[in-house]
Amino acid sequence: MAKSKFEYVRLFEVDDRCLPNTWIVVRVDGKGFHKFSTEHGYEKPNDIKALSLMNRAATSVMEEFKDICLAYGQSDEYSFVFRKETQAYSRRSAKLSTNVCSLFTSAFVYYWNEYFPTIKPRYPPVFDGRTVLYPSNQNIRDYLSWRQADCHINNLYNTTFWALILKGGLTPTEAENKLKGTLSGDKNEILFSQFAINYNTEPEMLRKGTVLVRRKVPVALPNGGTREKSQIVQEHVDIIGDEFWNTNTHLLTLT
Amino acid sequence: MAKSKFEYVRLFEVDDRCLPNTWIVVRVDGKGFHKFSTEHGYEKPNDIKALSLMNRAATSVMEEFKDICLAYGQSDEYSFVFRKETQAYSRRSAKLSTNVCSLFTSAFVYYWNEYFPTIKPRYPPVFDGRTVLYPSNQNIRDYLSWRQADCHINNLYNTTFWALILKGGLTPTEAENKLKGTLSGDKNEILFSQFAINYNTEPEMLRKGTVLVRRKVPVALPNGGTREKSQIVQEHVDIIGDEFWNTNTHLLTLT
Amino acid sequence: MAKSKFEYVRLFEVDDRCLPNTWIVVRVDGKGFHKFSTEHGYEKPNDIKALSLMNRAATSVMEEFKDICLAYGQSDEYSFVFRKETQAYSRRSAKLSTNVCSLFTSAFVYYWNEYFPTIKPRYPPVFDGRTVLYPSNQNIRDYLSWRQADCHINNLYNTTFWALILKGGLTPTEAENKLKGTLSGDKNEILFSQFAINYNTEPEMLRKGTVLVRRKVPVALPNGGTREKSQIVQEHVDIIGDEFWNTNTHLLTLT
Amino acid sequence: MAKSKFEYVRLFEVDDRCLPNTWIVVRVDGKGFHKFSTEHGYEKPNDIKALSLMNRAATSVMEEFKDICLAYGQSDEYSFVFRKETQAYSRRSAKLSTNVCSLFTSAFVYYWNEYFPTIKPRYPPVFDGRTVLYPSNQNIRDYLSWRQADCHINNLYNTTFWALILKGGLTPTEAENKLKGTLSGDKNEILFSQFAINYNTEPEMLRKGTVLVRRKVPVALPNGGTREKSQIVQEHVDIIGDEFWNTNTHLLTLT
Repeated sequence: MAKSKFEYVRLFEVDDRCLPNTWIVVRVDGKGFHKFSTEHGYEKPNDIKALSLMNRAATSVMEEFKDICLAYGQSDEYSFVFRKETQAYSRRSAKLSTNVCSLFTSAFVYYWNEYFPTIKPRYPPVFDGRTVLYPSNQNIRDYLSWRQADCHINNLYNTTFWALILKGGLTPTEAENKLKGTLSGDKNEILFSQFAINYNTEPEMLRKGTVLVRRKVPVALPNGGTREKSQIVQEHVDIIGDEFWNTNTHLLTLT
Repeated sequence: MAKSKFEYVRLFEVDDRCLPNTWIVVRVDGKGFHKFSTEHGYEKPNDIKALSLMNRAATSVMEEFKDICLAYGQSDEYSFVFRKETQAYSRRSAKLSTNVCSLFTSAFVYYWNEYFPTIKPRYPPVFDGRTVLYPSNQNIRDYLSWRQADCHINNLYNTTFWALILKGGLTPTEAENKLKGTLSGDKNEILFSQFAINYNTEPEMLRKGTVLVRRKVPVALPNGGTREKSQIVQEHVDIIGDEFWNTNTHLLTLT
Repeated sequence: MAKSKFEYVRLFEVDDRCLPNTWIVVRVDGKGFHKFSTEHGYEKPNDIKALSLMNRAATSVMEEFKDICLAYGQSDEYSFVFRKETQAYSRRSAKLSTNVCSLFTSAFVYYWNEYFPTIKPRYPPVFDGRTVLYPSNQNIRDYLSWRQADCHINNLYNTTFWALILKGGLTPTEAENKLKGTLSGDKNEILFSQFAINYNTEPEMLRKGTVLVRRKVPVALPNGGTREKSQIVQEHVDIIGDEFWNTNTHLLTLT
Repeated sequence: MAKSKFEYVRLFEVDDRCLPNTWIVVRVDGKGFHKFSTEHGYEKPNDIKALSLMNRAATSVMEEFKDICLAYGQSDEYSFVFRKETQAYSRRSAKLSTNVCSLFTSAFVYYWNEYFPTIKPRYPPVFDGRTVLYPSNQNIRDYLSWRQADCHINNLYNTTFWALILKGGLTPTEAENKLKGTLSGDKNEILFSQFAINYNTEPEMLRKGTVLVRRKVPVALPNGGTREKSQIVQEHVDIIGDEFWNTNTHLLTLT
């Protein structure tokens, strides 16, 4: 079998290694999840089970890729931040994006039943993925701030939109019109005055999204003592602003 | 919320559109499937159910992406050939590879139960993906020939290797040593003389892999007549050599 | 001297090899040549000496790079077509564009004196360069047709524009206004009726630009005989349309 | 003229913009300068005129590109460092490398006569160019240190090599053999003991290369006073180590 005769086609593959000493982000995004969430009866404006499944899938990704130092998720998207110096897959861009994206998708379907035990998915859900590079610590922080700002803006809007519909009896079109041109303050006011909802006491997972980081947590030993173990934990905190980074300086430092 | 302050980070995303007028192949490959197949009791040397599940997942991909004109699968890999002129996702390389890879993975887990009803996957399976460009018809044919040659070589080896173990009573190490340095003819001879296996009558799906193409097939109408409908069909044929291409000239022609 | 301590920075260089089996075009373009031509007294609308210098510089490039099978020049630009299979500089994009661009620039300054013996350049002229890939024969022909169409359109415009000024006594603004919205036929008519210029008998180098190809030409031998020698020749012919390509089929064929 | 029919070929050009917020280095390198320097009678081991011409050409590049904050040259190469935030040519990689490379080459030929008034270049000299990105201040410093370490190593070798030949009467082969396996200390010792050359008092331009930076320098005014003006100055200093950077902190700071 003339294998060698055809093998030249390997030369058409390109070298797509990421610039060294640069933060690598792989973001996965649900494809057509507006439709998917409607067809699978996601609760509005937020479905805690669906977000928890996203967090579960993201945890699988972080368990597999030790060089992911932080992940941030909200709505139907998750961003994975690889250490600047990672040599995972020789930093090949497509290898990183497809492996992360495939594992995330796989875990999403695999663990679906734990979060939606009574509903079988009607079709296979899909997430796309992309690799983006950020050179400086400020850049990677701004990237994460961008995603959290997006979470805040969308969640405030959706919370108000669905309150107007589910509690205020408006049609979707009426709700949309009422919110046209409103600022954050206006939406907070609508929620508070019309529905007695104090937005700032809504669950933090909804308002801030989910940060996954590795923490040393104490584990009980048979002899009654404890030992420390690295574990992936979920936090629903502000990553906009300095507080998180000041108390987690190791994240932006070379190891 | 100062959204605009952070949004500059979008400028760090790169434009990765594929060269126009060029064949685009997205190949997905099982990650660690040697281990996965062992842990899930795949039959050796080939598990028809596992290959059928691969074909099912690939069919989902072709149903979604109308611009895939042909797919070829063998073992734990599948190659999807997009029409030269496709504008799917504006030909963006990462969009194509991650969407195909995610859908393939998702469908693999989603349909698992139809092929392995008694076994739950022990963990989420993963496939990586890559996008490769081929400029000429000869290049794309040689690419597919390369994959089919790989199928032939590996399948002949595996068939002989496992016959030596399962029917010949050799240990894996003994079988490996026996096959070291043998040519195709030697392996055919071992199969025939020791195990009465005529390799050329083994199932074509195993020897040649699976080609997925769209064919017009007749569909019965309520009034007793028939109409033609485009359908994705599986074929286990030689794509090395001219015969397949001479009878499927439309595949390499601009539409 | 801790050389090795710093040498890691080489890893930041990227592999930019061009897709195999694809036409490679390097186009060089004069930077700010409107200003350069004015400051150096180029004749209007065309300066034969300046075009001849461009052709001389391009010939130097073709003498150096044997894998350039054809070059096409007009105005202050030149396109160099490398054979599809060239392995020059391992097909590295930046190596090809910078070497061609540097040699073209260097030769332009070097030979300046032969074409403008009485004028010293007032400052070093600059050309930028780019590498573009074209997969099919039709694509590379269309690329060259695009440049020749550009030559025709600009030259007809400039010829008419400068006739109105130099022979018709119009100001540049008046000439521009007169030509606004005119079609090719209108400009031909203006040239013919007002200035008795038959555009189609203008020199072909101006109307069609210059094609450089290698031709076997007879060379006289001391003994009175001749032998054939490959030489770079200038032709001012249509490359739009089939005629040139039908009589030069070797150019688009793999060698 | 069916211009639009061909213009689609522009879509084959790729977007090659450099990652934002990253140092951009364009390095130009003499092509075949071992041969070029021999054929043009460059003095050995160093030709001050040739190095001065390199510095003159590099100064032209810095005059044109205001976003080059520093350049470093040695032997037949020059590196140009663009500010991290430069938007020159929209950060397009090929535009930057070809423009810098073309201007450098052009100026080299243009000013040749000022440095070699009695020798006409025998053929057009060529420099290739490349664009490389460096994310951090440490990386860009290490890049420059790498080039200066290269200068030191080569110059010490060449100084000793040519002393052995020109003053010691060895053949090139004998000199090469004598230096095989020697360390820096050994070469210093040979220079000192055999030729009474204290390497450390050799001209700094030879030992350290040339740094080009912009400095405010006083300019005399007609009224007898002075004003400050930004000017490109040559310095022959250590860029390995902290001293230069500690006294030029503005170079690595965003402006």
